[in-house]
Amino acid sequence: MELDRTASTGLRQQIVEQVRGAVERGVLLPDDPLPSTRALAEALAVSRTTALEAYLELEGDGWVYGVHGAGTFVAHRPAAAPAPTPVVLEPDDEPELDLRAGTMDPGLVPDAWRAAWRAVSPRSFAPDPCGDPALRSGLAAYLSSARGLPCRPEEIVVCAGASEAVTVLGLALGWAGRAVAFEDPGYADMRDLVVRLGARHVPLPVDAAAPVALALEHLTARGETPAAVYLTPSHQFPLGHRLEEDDRRAVLAWARRSGSVVVEDDYDGEFRFGVPPLPSLAGLDPDAPVVYLGTLSKVLDPSLRLAYLRVPPALLPEVVHVRGLVGATVSGQVQEVVAGWLASGALSRHIARVRRVYADRRAALLRALEEVPGVVGVRGIEAGLHVVADLAPGIDAAAVVAQARERGVAVTSLDDFRSSPPGPPALLLHHGGLDPQSLREAVRRLAGCAAMGVRTSPPA
Amino acid sequence: MELDRTASTGLRQQIVEQVRGAVERGVLLPDDPLPSTRALAEALAVSRTTALEAYLELEGDGWVYGVHGAGTFVAHRPAAAPAPTPVVLEPDDEPELDLRAGTMDPGLVPDAWRAAWRAVSPRSFAPDPCGDPALRSGLAAYLSSARGLPCRPEEIVVCAGASEAVTVLGLALGWAGRAVAFEDPGYADMRDLVVRLGARHVPLPVDAAAPVALALEHLTARGETPAAVYLTPSHQFPLGHRLEEDDRRAVLAWARRSGSVVVEDDYDGEFRFGVPPLPSLAGLDPDAPVVYLGTLSKVLDPSLRLAYLRVPPALLPEVVHVRGLVGATVSGQVQEVVAGWLASGALSRHIARVRRVYADRRAALLRALEEVPGVVGVRGIEAGLHVVADLAPGIDAAAVVAQARERGVAVTSLDDFRSSPPGPPALLLHHGGLDPQSLREAVRRLAGCAAMGVRTSPPA
Repeated sequence: MELDRTASTGLRQQIVEQVRGAVERGVLLPDDPLPSTRALAEALAVSRTTALEAYLELEGDGWVYGVHGAGTFVAHRPAAAPAPTPVVLEPDDEPELDLRAGTMDPGLVPDAWRAAWRAVSPRSFAPDPCGDPALRSGLAAYLSSARGLPCRPEEIVVCAGASEAVTVLGLALGWAGRAVAFEDPGYADMRDLVVRLGARHVPLPVDAAAPVALALEHLTARGETPAAVYLTPSHQFPLGHRLEEDDRRAVLAWARRSGSVVVEDDYDGEFRFGVPPLPSLAGLDPDAPVVYLGTLSKVLDPSLRLAYLRVPPALLPEVVHVRGLVGATVSGQVQEVVAGWLASGALSRHIARVRRVYADRRAALLRALEEVPGVVGVRGIEAGLHVVADLAPGIDAAAVVAQARERGVAVTSLDDFRSSPPGPPALLLHHGGLDPQSLREAVRRLAGCAAMGVRTSPPA
Repeated sequence: MELDRTASTGLRQQIVEQVRGAVERGVLLPDDPLPSTRALAEALAVSRTTALEAYLELEGDGWVYGVHGAGTFVAHRPAAAPAPTPVVLEPDDEPELDLRAGTMDPGLVPDAWRAAWRAVSPRSFAPDPCGDPALRSGLAAYLSSARGLPCRPEEIVVCAGASEAVTVLGLALGWAGRAVAFEDPGYADMRDLVVRLGARHVPLPVDAAAPVALALEHLTARGETPAAVYLTPSHQFPLGHRLEEDDRRAVLAWARRSGSVVVEDDYDGEFRFGVPPLPSLAGLDPDAPVVYLGTLSKVLDPSLRLAYLRVPPALLPEVVHVRGLVGATVSGQVQEVVAGWLASGALSRHIARVRRVYADRRAALLRALEEVPGVVGVRGIEAGLHVVADLAPGIDAAAVVAQARERGVAVTSLDDFRSSPPGPPALLLHHGGLDPQSLREAVRRLAGCAAMGVRTSPPA
């Protein structure tokens, strides 16, 4: 065995690889003795610790075994299939300027959040499937204080993301074989997930101008009362408008009469711009059949994978039961860091800070869009982290998306969220991930797309 | 406003609570101005920063709003339902000596693992739903090297625990409305989960003496070929025996003929004691319809909530599709820490170290059980972190469990894992969470249970 002290591979790793190679080539056979760690260390001029750690690593992976007092020997390895050809995972082609929903700006991650992770301790037990008591208490206090939803810690069920939460909910409330209504246009991935859970999809036409409660009454009148309705009242996804308070109360009244359950997805409800707050549906009546779904992806860190349900008491036993079957999904470490941020008020202060940042970004985006001839209107500007830009009739939104991508800008066509596209041309523009200067540059490139130029061609 | 400098509540929090209280009591009304942070800081003799952070926290939670250049004002809050009566979550009554499956010893968490968390960085993007490329590559290399399962990174799908993995699998492979066979006795929670996913449960009798392949052939002969079979070949849960290599090959042959998919749950297969390794089912033929399910709960940290599937190429597209719909569930931070431990070989070295610790514990448990008259045999001693202690006929295992619990010892009756209890009396004893001395004490208390004394009563 010879070590290369100029190689980038460490000495321990070189020992591990050479022993493995010798076993694989049959140079070392099962039960062959290896030199003692002392002899190996001397022969290779490495520390005894390096030799010992190399043997431990080989033992952990089953290449050698140790016999107390006798030494280390080559292990019997089961006959394995031949190693596959390694394939390198293709990295995604990342756009230069990303205005798709779900993107965030790394610059918004505060130093205090980085520091919080340094205090995390590993654990020797799995968390409660519904979440650590400290986190559930913190989320209940946050919902009560900040979101106008008075609730108790035991009504909070922690989940690993909004879709995982809906999976648990669908299994708990028995959606398989029943109808579930989804806003149209709406959150297409969530709709596909619910269909995968066995539910039948019923489209619920949504428009800022027409009350949602009326659309629900229409379903009931047609004998199509769904088992559940998925709504985004704080900031309709993707259109961006908010459900007015009268409509909220009418939706609640319909749910109570129909026996349907409303899932209130409040994915970015923390962000309002110049409008008074509206009560959450669940907050209007905490005993109503409304399950509130919140997430920390938009306010804190989208890589956390932490969402939470507030379940009204009547539905709680079934949801807790299924959460127990699926088990805890959020690591104790993540729960500990977030519980600490909630208890210290750091999350609330962070939200206040980024709210100002997002208000500036939104203002920059709206000003820039005013200069684009193909954009005939901007909707959904009161809340959340994206707006909808309506394009002039005749513009091919899909062509704009494709041309923008060639110019390094990623945006989404509203048609991607419609259950029966195409509709009037419009783009979804998410401003959470880019600073004002980048947003202006993105809009400049968007305006330069040939497909946006329909309106500037000579009149017929 | 007055601050109590002797209180345990911090000054910032006292300001926050007093402003909230004043708003709630109607002392402060919407649009009322608050003192400037400078004036407040002077009046209360706190730092300007404390005043500023208190206002930020109130703003984040929607109690006040700031107007640039004009100051801070009381916000309009939506009419909320009254606050609920706070209920303190009841802490679980933790046993003094816990021999239930899933428990771990905090003393086994190494310092290096604690240190790994200090380097974690927050992120601004959600992980790939199937997992970070670095983690998938590390897991593929680990499975290839340590578990005899050659595979490629793109065949690895990361999940938030074994049950979450099975949820994704059940949705991807369409188990709803079809039969799924479960070992009997077996992992009852997993069986209940699969039933909740809409599958029909078919019990598969397992016994160390009878080949599993034969039991599967019986199902097929009866026209009950299941869509999937859930097996624990490395260490049958709960009986503890290993599937012999001939039986493994016969199971594979049956699966290929029947079109059924085998889920190979290798929950604690890292731990063998004095027996040669057996190839994993999936490793015998990486193209066979076998989905390998691994977890890091048993080898590292049960609070991680990190499991992984190795999916054969033919089944991969559907599993990746559903993983995409359910979304990423494991936080980027957790993935980063584990990927680092895999790449550095630290995980393999840790496994070698704890394997020795567990061997000592197992030996201590087995020696102690020899002294218990009511224990007539111990099964499943070759692998894993638990054994099954068969009790003398006539002993009421449930009564032993209850009496042991009164004496501070938590164990499980084998009947809890049978689909049609009761069977011959037996206990499941998990030795992963206790040191040798505690195991001896636990067995001493177990032996002292009146219900264990059936054999020591005068002969009839």
